[in-house]
Amino acid sequence: MKFAMFQTPFVHPSRTPRQVFDWAVEQAEYCDKIGFTEYWVGEHGVMGWESIPNPELIIAAAARTTSNIKLCPGAHLPPYHHPATLAAQVSFLSHVTEGRYILGVGAGGYPADAQLRGMKDLSQNRAMLSEAMKIMEMVWESKPFHYEGEFWNAGYPENDEHHEYRNLTPYGGKVDIAMAGLSPNSSTLGYAGKQGYLALSVYAGEASIKNHWETYEKAATEAGHTVHRKDFRVVRDVLVAETDAEAKRIAVEGGMGKAWMDYLLPVYKQVGLLQALLPGMEPSDVDIDTVAEKIWIVGSPDTVAEKLADVYERTGGWGTTLLYNHDYIDNPSAWNNSLDLLVKEVGPKLAHLGN
Amino acid sequence: MKFAMFQTPFVHPSRTPRQVFDWAVEQAEYCDKIGFTEYWVGEHGVMGWESIPNPELIIAAAARTTSNIKLCPGAHLPPYHHPATLAAQVSFLSHVTEGRYILGVGAGGYPADAQLRGMKDLSQNRAMLSEAMKIMEMVWESKPFHYEGEFWNAGYPENDEHHEYRNLTPYGGKVDIAMAGLSPNSSTLGYAGKQGYLALSVYAGEASIKNHWETYEKAATEAGHTVHRKDFRVVRDVLVAETDAEAKRIAVEGGMGKAWMDYLLPVYKQVGLLQALLPGMEPSDVDIDTVAEKIWIVGSPDTVAEKLADVYERTGGWGTTLLYNHDYIDNPSAWNNSLDLLVKEVGPKLAHLGN
Repeated sequence: MKFAMFQTPFVHPSRTPRQVFDWAVEQAEYCDKIGFTEYWVGEHGVMGWESIPNPELIIAAAARTTSNIKLCPGAHLPPYHHPATLAAQVSFLSHVTEGRYILGVGAGGYPADAQLRGMKDLSQNRAMLSEAMKIMEMVWESKPFHYEGEFWNAGYPENDEHHEYRNLTPYGGKVDIAMAGLSPNSSTLGYAGKQGYLALSVYAGEASIKNHWETYEKAATEAGHTVHRKDFRVVRDVLVAETDAEAKRIAVEGGMGKAWMDYLLPVYKQVGLLQALLPGMEPSDVDIDTVAEKIWIVGSPDTVAEKLADVYERTGGWGTTLLYNHDYIDNPSAWNNSLDLLVKEVGPKLAHLGN
Repeated sequence: MKFAMFQTPFVHPSRTPRQVFDWAVEQAEYCDKIGFTEYWVGEHGVMGWESIPNPELIIAAAARTTSNIKLCPGAHLPPYHHPATLAAQVSFLSHVTEGRYILGVGAGGYPADAQLRGMKDLSQNRAMLSEAMKIMEMVWESKPFHYEGEFWNAGYPENDEHHEYRNLTPYGGKVDIAMAGLSPNSSTLGYAGKQGYLALSVYAGEASIKNHWETYEKAATEAGHTVHRKDFRVVRDVLVAETDAEAKRIAVEGGMGKAWMDYLLPVYKQVGLLQALLPGMEPSDVDIDTVAEKIWIVGSPDTVAEKLADVYERTGGWGTTLLYNHDYIDNPSAWNNSLDLLVKEVGPKLAHLGN
């Protein structure tokens, strides 16, 4: 099983952009050093939590200070960019990272991100995403065209005797594209399967992992794409320490606990996902202990290995466990120790899984 | 007199994006180390030369490895971005750099950049720039609004009990904005003066320096803005070596000569700027020696100091000499030595100018 990081970022709204930036870049460097395979960075224009407006900024800053880890926008929200501008930038960074790059895309789920761009709701976002992807693929061909679409126009210039134009084809000829699903029967993962993109399952209860894969695989198969569980990525909250008690304490008292109690639980209640996350529970009964026991995977290396293996068995499995990053800016050693233990102690116990 | 760098980049089209990126970041670091005050980075989506699609990528990569130098998009081309997306990114980076940031903007001058975005010509660019700046200013206010414009819609979300939104006001309350002019009687610099922005004069003959300042100052004064020559930035090609002969050799045989002969002269001929650049000369008579003697400022420290002081006297002066960067990727020591000599030997001779 491979381990990767998802830097949403769940960094507290009180942190300055400089703190958010430094933490995100330093975590990319640390994850690279200890052998994580991928580092995903979210994009939101105005959110208090999740406050990186452009993942490319973190990727650019980490490109020269990391060696092996893939640096991945996760996800760019193409409805909020001119797709030709985004295509040129993605191509450039795929070359700068010499292929250590996967392009995550999403239609955008937060109304505030849409409002920032003068959109009153999210009703057009999926159609915008489809057109944006079509335009980006055309730009990457680097052959002259002129396209007039529903939301944007785009093109690639004709040859000109005075100018040489860059080939905007991504490094290696193509860029891998990925999408993340959250809701049951995720239409996003259906779309990803149909397009032949990679799939991430954002955690919304154990049943959703199985459901996300099935939704994705069915759509992929129908479209003639063969997909593999080893390429399936599952996002979880994981914290490892020397003992179960110590792990729970670090999780509950630190950024992981704050993110869930102050931000994620209220959001999940708002959007009606708590039922999927904690089936059969009354929202008012959910406290931090419930979250620690039923949502997170926290404990000693033995406990975490056992819990991950159990979920793997029950759901059919996946290839890469993507950890949500949390705000341990004031206590990075506890957080980094958790990552170390995951790679050194938990990883070997799960080496037979996810291949 | 202050010295700053303009990384257009004039890096050869054969260079890979990784080479362009590394060179641009390393030059930012070097310029910071030796005391240059600003580092400007251009933006073009598809040009063979001038091949950085988003200056923010270089700024992000240099933000943590530089200390004093200002890192400046020079220029962002707002017609090719969603202005609310750009505003959020600019605000973020102004904080990440803790105010070491000036926002250069331009309407866009190359047809290919417009064609990449499906625009058949540049006729709407100036109107798009105006609307984009208006939208960016509104976003930076960080107060709820909804705006429907000619080219874009934008807004800032209403408060929401479930979400805290980021204040998108740039570091220190506002961001300095700058524009660059090239043509005689530059309408761009007229616009910059009217808006109270800073002004850069891109070199198009000595008369243009005087003309650019007068055009800018007149528009600024009419709009009620007081502007100062010490804030005026003039772009020049400068190369210093121990002797005049050595400086000319490094300039002619290196990236500076290649950029002018293979790219800039053909482009200037195409757009009709050669007459301003070299008054009274037939285009067919222009060779590398003409360029070295009449356009560049190359020579020993004494020669360069004398030439710069002469131009300063004849044109009325400026505060910051902005050097075009050139492709010395294969011989960085000659180029960096030129920058060293400029700061250590030429600078003290011009310390009485530009204040």
